[in-house]
Amino acid sequence: MRNPYEQMSPKEVRALIREGKITGNTSGMCAGFAQANLVILPKELAYDFLLFTQRNPAPCPVLEVSDVGSRLLNIVAPGADIATDLPSYRLYEYGELKGEFTDVSHLWRDDFVSFLIGCSFSFEAELLEAEIPVRQIEEGRNVPMYITNIPCMPAGVFHGNMVVSMRPMLPQDAIRASVITAAMPRVHGKPVHIGDPAMIGIKDIMQPDFGESVTIKEGEVPVFWPCGVTPQAAVMAAKPPICITHSPGCMLITDVKNVALKN
Amino acid sequence: MRNPYEQMSPKEVRALIREGKITGNTSGMCAGFAQANLVILPKELAYDFLLFTQRNPAPCPVLEVSDVGSRLLNIVAPGADIATDLPSYRLYEYGELKGEFTDVSHLWRDDFVSFLIGCSFSFEAELLEAEIPVRQIEEGRNVPMYITNIPCMPAGVFHGNMVVSMRPMLPQDAIRASVITAAMPRVHGKPVHIGDPAMIGIKDIMQPDFGESVTIKEGEVPVFWPCGVTPQAAVMAAKPPICITHSPGCMLITDVKNVALKN
Repeated sequence: MRNPYEQMSPKEVRALIREGKITGNTSGMCAGFAQANLVILPKELAYDFLLFTQRNPAPCPVLEVSDVGSRLLNIVAPGADIATDLPSYRLYEYGELKGEFTDVSHLWRDDFVSFLIGCSFSFEAELLEAEIPVRQIEEGRNVPMYITNIPCMPAGVFHGNMVVSMRPMLPQDAIRASVITAAMPRVHGKPVHIGDPAMIGIKDIMQPDFGESVTIKEGEVPVFWPCGVTPQAAVMAAKPPICITHSPGCMLITDVKNVALKN
Repeated sequence: MRNPYEQMSPKEVRALIREGKITGNTSGMCAGFAQANLVILPKELAYDFLLFTQRNPAPCPVLEVSDVGSRLLNIVAPGADIATDLPSYRLYEYGELKGEFTDVSHLWRDDFVSFLIGCSFSFEAELLEAEIPVRQIEEGRNVPMYITNIPCMPAGVFHGNMVVSMRPMLPQDAIRASVITAAMPRVHGKPVHIGDPAMIGIKDIMQPDFGESVTIKEGEVPVFWPCGVTPQAAVMAAKPPICITHSPGCMLITDVKNVALKN
């Protein structure tokens, strides 16, 4: 069964989300349009976080940063309201999950800065277009994600190792996928590793740190991409007094077409 | 006559610069290595400036941001001293040029943040490699630069229109040059315009706002790239209490090969 919101425009779906009519995950909605991860931090921490993303652009490709205190977006979804237009939000205090909300208007502060970060959904659409199989979609699972031994460049209070997502494929598809995704640096770009998981500190490929494991078929190699969970993990480790993120899978649907994220 | 420092390593040339033995422009030095523009601002303005570069990555491709107060670089030129390793610096106060120095150690402050910004020298090396003529090099001039009517996305106190550099070439070379430079987003990437200068607000192509005019031959079209003067112009317009930049043409020579700046 196809997603009933697949053919709707981002603006229409965001309106339904704002009205509370959609509160679940956005996977498969508004085909062809990019979705984005959200991290909201107080201004006091915004410089360090922006610098962390600048120093680690592959796992942290920033699509838009809001003006201080503003709930409105100007670039990727003009007119969107950050506090209401995602289906579900998580509130963290000192690194601890304190609640999940479908609207964070009541939590809004004048010193909040919102970071919208590119998401692998965009390059997966391009892989599927090129008839490269994406296993976790075939198997109806979450993509498997792993904490690696690859250190991010630290910035102020933010630090941590890179988190990667993994998609198994035949070597010839791995090469094509590398070329296709290299042209999309604003949604993580090319893989960071192909092959032996141990080389990047992954002990058991069937035991991901986040998401779910997927089948690796005979002759396939695991291909690892920098993952947008990296900045979230860096924020959690820094234990800021307050941070709001999207709930897993409940992304901002932007007005930007995936193809527009190509170089 | 070739540049006597063409075949030396960046580290060797930076040492000569630090010792005061080189105080002029770095054009042609350390063939194959990227050179970078420098903007030093107090921490108070660093967030707005970093956000300006994030919102305008084509004219402002950041290669490295120093830690607050640190004169050392870690990424593009490990061990380099920002305050001594460029041949010449300019000091601006409230937007006015207050002095030119071969060393800014005596001006250094604990709240300074240094921004190293990619430079078109890197993609010109790739164009020459592909046998695409670069007119201002042929004619021994500075590249012509123009203030356009293309607004940058503002960020805090920083705003302004995009400054572009222009290289005339045959249409078939313009196409090849677009493809070659598109793969180098960290040094301005693809052109922002090809053809009619009036479409981007340039009244007289023979009267550049910065640099010098070059010959446009029969059958050639002007090709316009986002230019690293854009962030400098935005800083000057904001008139910060203090700002230090490189003197024109007196860049930081990095340890990063131009080819490493490709996607």
